[in-house]
Amino acid sequence: MVGATGAVGVEMIKTLERRSFRTAKLTLLASARSVGKKLKFRGDEIAIKELGRDSFQGVDIALFSAGANISKEFGPIAAQAGCVVIDNSSAFRMDDLVPLVIPEINATDIRLHAGIIANPNCTTAITLMALYPLHQAFHVKRIFASSYQAVSGTGAKAIEELERQVGQIMTGTPVTKEVYPHQIAFNVLPHVDSFLPSGYTKEEMKMENEGRKIMHHPAFRASVTCVRVPVYRAH
Amino acid sequence: MVGATGAVGVEMIKTLERRSFRTAKLTLLASARSVGKKLKFRGDEIAIKELGRDSFQGVDIALFSAGANISKEFGPIAAQAGCVVIDNSSAFRMDDLVPLVIPEINATDIRLHAGIIANPNCTTAITLMALYPLHQAFHVKRIFASSYQAVSGTGAKAIEELERQVGQIMTGTPVTKEVYPHQIAFNVLPHVDSFLPSGYTKEEMKMENEGRKIMHHPAFRASVTCVRVPVYRAH
Repeated sequence: MVGATGAVGVEMIKTLERRSFRTAKLTLLASARSVGKKLKFRGDEIAIKELGRDSFQGVDIALFSAGANISKEFGPIAAQAGCVVIDNSSAFRMDDLVPLVIPEINATDIRLHAGIIANPNCTTAITLMALYPLHQAFHVKRIFASSYQAVSGTGAKAIEELERQVGQIMTGTPVTKEVYPHQIAFNVLPHVDSFLPSGYTKEEMKMENEGRKIMHHPAFRASVTCVRVPVYRAH
Repeated sequence: MVGATGAVGVEMIKTLERRSFRTAKLTLLASARSVGKKLKFRGDEIAIKELGRDSFQGVDIALFSAGANISKEFGPIAAQAGCVVIDNSSAFRMDDLVPLVIPEINATDIRLHAGIIANPNCTTAITLMALYPLHQAFHVKRIFASSYQAVSGTGAKAIEELERQVGQIMTGTPVTKEVYPHQIAFNVLPHVDSFLPSGYTKEEMKMENEGRKIMHHPAFRASVTCVRVPVYRAH
């Protein structure tokens, strides 16, 4: 697993445990910063190893969730080493040679993989789970969607930022900003991922672009407004 | 002013000050609970008086923002006493004899008043300000809208509830609920006002119903999703 110490990595470890996913061995990889840390898996403590070009020898399945740049650099290396890479980032989603899969919708696309399988954007995945049965019944041409996206989607540092800003406001100290360009505590930001020349953000266009590929529906249109809200799942 | 101690009442007082609205005298009315309190207006301290049937003698303009029940009971009394009532509640908005006005859109409807003028729902007012110029240019048939509504729209007690719940979570004490049926801190609730048999809430239908009246556009349709978010304006 690449990105084991991130907000998503921690949830993936919990999911492997909860679903009793069969593993001979779980290798946890992260950046040099995290070396020395340990994470629990089925009662064992597993030491984090630094991600490198030789990390993938003897690994069957490599779960990547460390951002698109890490995936672009190390995904092909892992695939070359014989892994099936399941990539949670946006790096390969629109690559014609990479299946983009929601198992409940297009599981059979997995068969076409050449070493890398991409997982869709989180907002897209949730929306299409509801939309696809409607599409099968009625043929969906176009949707209008608005999102309410938790800070946990940005990662562990964003959760820390929300908690820090709430503490700052409650104690009357000045609010500091590191992750988001504006205060997120007690606020909403209509800005997820970066803006495109059209005025939509990249996040907003993923629904249409990834939806077309997953549903095998090239004429699908989606007009989406993505908003970050000061919510996280821990509570 | 009826409802002077509420979240909206306080903002109305500030607005009268900021806009230098000419007043010979400002009378602040609220429930018996608030009698004894004082509020500042242009440097003076004004004592809150209890709202009663005799509160409106000699008053020219009565601003109501104490909920629909208070407006239904005392709005007609104030109008009978010779006031022009400007009502912020939903009590009279859809009454054929009461103009429902956004000054930038249908100011001339004010001339038809018989003592009461209604102010639209807040979400409706904001949306129509953007929508009406588009309607004039293109003729709007139908809109899809989603809202992100601050707790301050529920009132002062909801702001207190958000602050209390955030404090409870930050200190690890159990979260208590008084205003909303679910926790609002670090959460979003797709539930503003009460649900109708259709599955829409009353709040969601106000956009269509009030929009038709304000824009003089009886065929206008609006499919709306209203969501309460843990936001307030004080910060």
